[in-house]
Amino acid sequence: MAGGAGDERSVAERVFAIADAFERGGELTLSEVARRANLPTSTAHRLLAEWVSWGGLVRGDDGRYRVGMKLWRLGVRQPTARRLREVARPYLEDLLEATGEHVHLAVRDGLGVVYLERFSGPGAVRVISDVGSRLPLHATGVGLVLLAYAPPEVFAEVLAGPPRKFLPNTLTGEAELRSRLADIRSTGISRSVEELTRGAFSVAAPVRDSAGDVVAAVSIIAHVERRDEPQFPLGVRMAARGISGALSIRR
Amino acid sequence: MAGGAGDERSVAERVFAIADAFERGGELTLSEVARRANLPTSTAHRLLAEWVSWGGLVRGDDGRYRVGMKLWRLGVRQPTARRLREVARPYLEDLLEATGEHVHLAVRDGLGVVYLERFSGPGAVRVISDVGSRLPLHATGVGLVLLAYAPPEVFAEVLAGPPRKFLPNTLTGEAELRSRLADIRSTGISRSVEELTRGAFSVAAPVRDSAGDVVAAVSIIAHVERRDEPQFPLGVRMAARGISGALSIRR
Repeated sequence: MAGGAGDERSVAERVFAIADAFERGGELTLSEVARRANLPTSTAHRLLAEWVSWGGLVRGDDGRYRVGMKLWRLGVRQPTARRLREVARPYLEDLLEATGEHVHLAVRDGLGVVYLERFSGPGAVRVISDVGSRLPLHATGVGLVLLAYAPPEVFAEVLAGPPRKFLPNTLTGEAELRSRLADIRSTGISRSVEELTRGAFSVAAPVRDSAGDVVAAVSIIAHVERRDEPQFPLGVRMAARGISGALSIRR
Repeated sequence: MAGGAGDERSVAERVFAIADAFERGGELTLSEVARRANLPTSTAHRLLAEWVSWGGLVRGDDGRYRVGMKLWRLGVRQPTARRLREVARPYLEDLLEATGEHVHLAVRDGLGVVYLERFSGPGAVRVISDVGSRLPLHATGVGLVLLAYAPPEVFAEVLAGPPRKFLPNTLTGEAELRSRLADIRSTGISRSVEELTRGAFSVAAPVRDSAGDVVAAVSIIAHVERRDEPQFPLGVRMAARGISGALSIRR
């Protein structure tokens, strides 16, 4: 009963459901949008026409829909992402140069971590994170850092999830998660090995604003064979410190 | 009669009008949103609540609304902006290093030019263009380049505008615009002096995709005193060529 009788969503919610279909990017056909938005094809068609008329979505010559320039223009106005990306860029580039792997900047968004920036060396390990993607807090290096400094109710919600075990090393139990978060708070760094991605390890550190609050995290994801090389924790720590310092100065 | 009886907009159009209020960024109060969206305060309040519930907008502790992470995440999925920015970044950075002024990457969006990227040196001239902003084709260096290679109906629409005279040097007449566009097509470069911004000149060049179509433009905006320095046209031309080449190779 896709969006038919019994669909209690408001018109606005149906309008937004259309956009949510594009959350993972790509170009979608009408029927793909209808299915993802859980709407009858006729409704999806009508709402897509409204999105296209506004400019938020664009319909290509092949009939497929994709995100349009209007949404891009609105999105770049998001103040947190804009400022953090701008301030962090030179530090992330230095970190990339020093390591040649994936370099990430991420923020917490509810129970997820959103990747604001990613720079990658040509031979970097294959990962699923990407600019704009959102992954669970408990399963990523940056996510664990952000969880370590989040209000306690966030931790309770993560546990209530319950947290999904992606790989044998993924932390899902309360005790092991608490222990890791305490370790992050005492050392200022998070190290994970194959907790979300096979063959990869991550080192992550917190970025603080001028008030000392943790507002973002920086990480490296690299081939697991390199996990003992000292430049990873050193580089991540210095990049995070550099960005924190720059956030305090610039406005 | 703000959005009251006689407002023939669909619900979706009213939903989008809320977002349009944030086009120039910033943090807005309820009444500012209502005014910009031409909606009664009660309607704006209800629709803002739907936007906040979805995550497209966020309401701060001070009661002001701003663009939320959801819109940022959708926006970064815009395929053209994403690919061009990624490919262009190193070339734009080299250009910045060589000049220390503003370096722009822009695409045409209807009768406007949208700035996809901007890198600026610390002493760069004061300009109104910014990442995400949209300016008229006829009044900007990148806009004139994109207009020079746009279908003829775009030029007709620009003339029908009619084009606004921002400064004494802004081209607005058909003959002078035609002459400039022909010059751009024959030299592959656009030079403007104080056509939109006092004290600034611009040098711009086209970026082509693998099919040879002009898909973007690169420019420098610099202090007008430096307008005869040879590194500006050279640098812009090389950056545009480099990006064009990289677009043909990478996918």
